[in-house]
Amino acid sequence: MQDLYVIKIGGNIIDDDEKLSAFLQQFAALSGNKVLVHGGGKLATKMAGQLGIEQQMVDGRRITDAETLKIVTMVYAGYINKNIVAQLQSKGCNAIGLTGADANLIPAKKRTHASIDFGFVGDVESLQPAVEHWKLLLQNGLVPVVAPITHNGEGQLLNTNADTIAQEIAKALGKLYKVRLVYSFEKPGVLLDVQDEASVIGRLNPSYYSELKQKGLIFAGMIPKLDNAFAALDNGVQTVIIGRAEELPGLIAGNAGTTITHD
Amino acid sequence: MQDLYVIKIGGNIIDDDEKLSAFLQQFAALSGNKVLVHGGGKLATKMAGQLGIEQQMVDGRRITDAETLKIVTMVYAGYINKNIVAQLQSKGCNAIGLTGADANLIPAKKRTHASIDFGFVGDVESLQPAVEHWKLLLQNGLVPVVAPITHNGEGQLLNTNADTIAQEIAKALGKLYKVRLVYSFEKPGVLLDVQDEASVIGRLNPSYYSELKQKGLIFAGMIPKLDNAFAALDNGVQTVIIGRAEELPGLIAGNAGTTITHD
Repeated sequence: MQDLYVIKIGGNIIDDDEKLSAFLQQFAALSGNKVLVHGGGKLATKMAGQLGIEQQMVDGRRITDAETLKIVTMVYAGYINKNIVAQLQSKGCNAIGLTGADANLIPAKKRTHASIDFGFVGDVESLQPAVEHWKLLLQNGLVPVVAPITHNGEGQLLNTNADTIAQEIAKALGKLYKVRLVYSFEKPGVLLDVQDEASVIGRLNPSYYSELKQKGLIFAGMIPKLDNAFAALDNGVQTVIIGRAEELPGLIAGNAGTTITHD
Repeated sequence: MQDLYVIKIGGNIIDDDEKLSAFLQQFAALSGNKVLVHGGGKLATKMAGQLGIEQQMVDGRRITDAETLKIVTMVYAGYINKNIVAQLQSKGCNAIGLTGADANLIPAKKRTHASIDFGFVGDVESLQPAVEHWKLLLQNGLVPVVAPITHNGEGQLLNTNADTIAQEIAKALGKLYKVRLVYSFEKPGVLLDVQDEASVIGRLNPSYYSELKQKGLIFAGMIPKLDNAFAALDNGVQTVIIGRAEELPGLIAGNAGTTITHD
């Protein structure tokens, strides 16, 4: 089985031209099969403000009304996605920018919730129908760059969490490749002490994770991310790595960030 | 050789939700290999107005400054492209939305001009480097939907005329397919009398075209389009068809619009 890296970059890298360019240089230099999933950054919020569209938040979550969907489609699938693709092309990486609607790569369903109407938010359904097309792109040397926009198959685009997209791609391709899922963000990894960036946990397996959770040593905000990471391992993903985007080669080599494995 | 339809839809269809949906239904129903190239419509101009970005025009041509490029990238490659893709998917057509930067499908060069700086406008270079990837998509049942954005291979996105993109795709793929290039717009075809929509010229070959031009019977605005169409025929395109978007099946069948051929 060949290796495949599914790498997610967070919004704060996207908002910083210099950091983004440095990251893309490292990403382009990574050999083998790879997929890049990007978040949104602050540009969509800024654009909404300029256009006088108010952001609705419910329980800390953004509600995607029709106007917001239009903006995130423009910013994520248009501006950010195509600029990343053009930059990667200039660095010798044959990137192809895609959303979940393209080639039906990520079918989703509009979220339904008992009390909150999230608007045009999509939860990913099975990627199985498009697995052959994912394989086709990768086998032909193309590098998918995925914006966090999906569709419901009935003509409706949907706003979808980029972390979830990365995880679903990793899981769906785990049957065909030895997948390493990398979440790169502004922190150096999972920290034992949230105040101390030197306290990165290098390796985390289920028993160590339980132990740390029991001792209350895992920052509450990290728990859903880590639960998700372990769930990915149970669904065909080889390794999940969490760490700083600027340290991509170290994350891949296993000498930076936190590597999450079964053993 | 298999058939391939390269179909360009103009801006006025894109601005009209009902007409667009009807056109996409007909496009989806067309069997065989096909590529859709779309123009921009008025949304980019509207968006620029809302954001307070002034449109610069020189000799009737829009100058693409950095802010305008940002907007056309968002609107053409994001909003319009992905909405078309999602609609086609819902109609059973496995569309994949792309720009010229994606998979380096349309390499271009920033336009240089002795006296006018057009800004970030790209003239298409040879599509040969990516012909294998064009073929790959088509052979695997995917339908490219192309936004009029290209790149220069050095990280710079460029705004490019959609008519030209359609023509360059048609020419490049003319070696592999029997290509019919369809320009669909708001008029029923090439008219003998510009005031009379019933005066459509059904068939136009080089000798009849010369004759009509000599008699001053070709509307001046159509001459560059027709010269381009005949140039495409000299470069491997089988037929060029010009007509109304709503009549797509008739255009394909040869009983609507103007068919431009060598004989």
